[in-house]
Amino acid sequence: MSAAINRQVILSSRPEGIPEAEHFRIVQTAVPQPAPGQVLIRNHFLAVEPAMRGWVNAVANYSQPVGIGEVMRSFAAGEIIESHDPHWPVGTRVTGMFGWQDYAAVDVSVIDYRVDQIDLPLSTSLGVLGINGITAHYGLMRIGEPRSGETVLVSTGAGAVGSCVGQIARIQGCRTVAITGGEVKQRLCTDRFQYDSAVDYKRDDFAEQLAAACPKGVDVYFDNTSGRISDAVMTHLNVGARVIICGTASIANWNPVPLGPRIERTLLVKRARMQGFVILDHRDHYAVARADLADWVRQGLIQYEEDILDGIEHAPDAIAGLYRGENLGRRLIRVID
Amino acid sequence: MSAAINRQVILSSRPEGIPEAEHFRIVQTAVPQPAPGQVLIRNHFLAVEPAMRGWVNAVANYSQPVGIGEVMRSFAAGEIIESHDPHWPVGTRVTGMFGWQDYAAVDVSVIDYRVDQIDLPLSTSLGVLGINGITAHYGLMRIGEPRSGETVLVSTGAGAVGSCVGQIARIQGCRTVAITGGEVKQRLCTDRFQYDSAVDYKRDDFAEQLAAACPKGVDVYFDNTSGRISDAVMTHLNVGARVIICGTASIANWNPVPLGPRIERTLLVKRARMQGFVILDHRDHYAVARADLADWVRQGLIQYEEDILDGIEHAPDAIAGLYRGENLGRRLIRVID
Repeated sequence: MSAAINRQVILSSRPEGIPEAEHFRIVQTAVPQPAPGQVLIRNHFLAVEPAMRGWVNAVANYSQPVGIGEVMRSFAAGEIIESHDPHWPVGTRVTGMFGWQDYAAVDVSVIDYRVDQIDLPLSTSLGVLGINGITAHYGLMRIGEPRSGETVLVSTGAGAVGSCVGQIARIQGCRTVAITGGEVKQRLCTDRFQYDSAVDYKRDDFAEQLAAACPKGVDVYFDNTSGRISDAVMTHLNVGARVIICGTASIANWNPVPLGPRIERTLLVKRARMQGFVILDHRDHYAVARADLADWVRQGLIQYEEDILDGIEHAPDAIAGLYRGENLGRRLIRVID
Repeated sequence: MSAAINRQVILSSRPEGIPEAEHFRIVQTAVPQPAPGQVLIRNHFLAVEPAMRGWVNAVANYSQPVGIGEVMRSFAAGEIIESHDPHWPVGTRVTGMFGWQDYAAVDVSVIDYRVDQIDLPLSTSLGVLGINGITAHYGLMRIGEPRSGETVLVSTGAGAVGSCVGQIARIQGCRTVAITGGEVKQRLCTDRFQYDSAVDYKRDDFAEQLAAACPKGVDVYFDNTSGRISDAVMTHLNVGARVIICGTASIANWNPVPLGPRIERTLLVKRARMQGFVILDHRDHYAVARADLADWVRQGLIQYEEDILDGIEHAPDAIAGLYRGENLGRRLIRVID
């Protein structure tokens, strides 16, 4: 065992809105002992994602909020280093909700996935082959239902989910357009993620750029932002459009609920559909999505970016950093050398 | 032939918002002669519906606007009195877009439907067995996908479409709740249309009434209104809810687009779906819907109300009257004794 202590990132106070460094503290505890039937996992990578804002806020959400004094909930990838279950031998690489800590003693039911793409880096099991890729795959394919020749528009198009959506849509034969912030990310979108076009929402001429990038309108809008970005998109929806609500990254606070242009008439006139989803409801889709994604990564059809912070001391500020837009690619914290 | 002249209601100027009597005028012309392949129809009933606002407004809509000086577009039901097509003999009762006039000479392709429920009044072919009932059937069954035991909430629950939605939902085993305006319509909803509950949106305690009427939340919301009524509903959506956007009767003007609380987070957290539709896209569903509806009407499972105005002179003010809420039931204009 490489460390005698278990560092844990604890939620120390409840934020309203975006969780900042001040809402967490790092404590040191003993490495836990796995109970009968449990396994002890040494985490290698901890995940950081926008949805964590919802996990720590007190308002009604799709999961119970993390309690004050509890280890921050997170996806993680690691290796089993002690096992009381013969189906899960020592050395098995796994992912699951192991939390922001070095070690987790968990029931095997907490394990999401036995990582079997051993030819690919373990970090991909939390990104392009993990919840990000699966979210992109489910949302686009099952809700968006893209057809060849359609235009698929993605907000946060350079993000861990968005970049996957764009590339999957391209594989389906769609014209793909990214909305992103700044020239660096625009270039990332067109050069690395192979979007047909990338539009900068920070520019004054965003609306004109968007119109120019979608000359045949928008058939599928994969929305990670909400807010004024989405308002601009709605005017370009085609008849029969599908809008996938995956996140609301541009809205800092939902209490009170911010106002925006009513969308009922657009949905009616365009016979359009808007649908939200939470990937944790769709575990039956994970294997299908992972198989597709691993194939596409191996064939070079899907590129991915990672933003790896070295050391658990980066965790408390890491969520706020996402909302500041400072990362390029999937943000992970590496907690093992 | 019962009249030598053809009275026509012409769109004389273009309204912004709701069309009023002043936007129409009535002219008298010769009864048209059907060309080869055409039929001459004597209209019996002309339809009046909220959607007509969209048909005469200049802003982008799902059909071309009626031109100034043209006969007002409308559904109508009548009888063929002269025919140049052996498949459509004199005496056949038909419905279609025959316009606000006594007589229409039309290609047979304009005929929507050969009325074969001869045991039921012809007026039903424009209401419960016509576009209203079919709209209710398609929207609820194909988009709403109601399941037994779920709560189905209907705005304009006493209306020609809404009352049908509520009764179809009841036949599916759902708890049904109407939103309507005033005690007379509330009683109509519970007594005649058999809703489990009816809530008055005009009352100060609307929000409390709505909560009390939907103790298990809302699984399906059939929305004919938009606006503050819908805002109140959104807070009661259950996980997996379906919102059917059928009309926006509470919004007097969409230019500029009015503001409302953003709904993206609700759709996300509740994994909910909102979808607009225009029934004219779904002609392949008409026969299925009509067969169900006629059976249900004959079995007494669906009740309907009609608000019949006698004489074409009532037409110009009839749309505005709908928006004033003066009708109880499907509004039609009878143009034959």
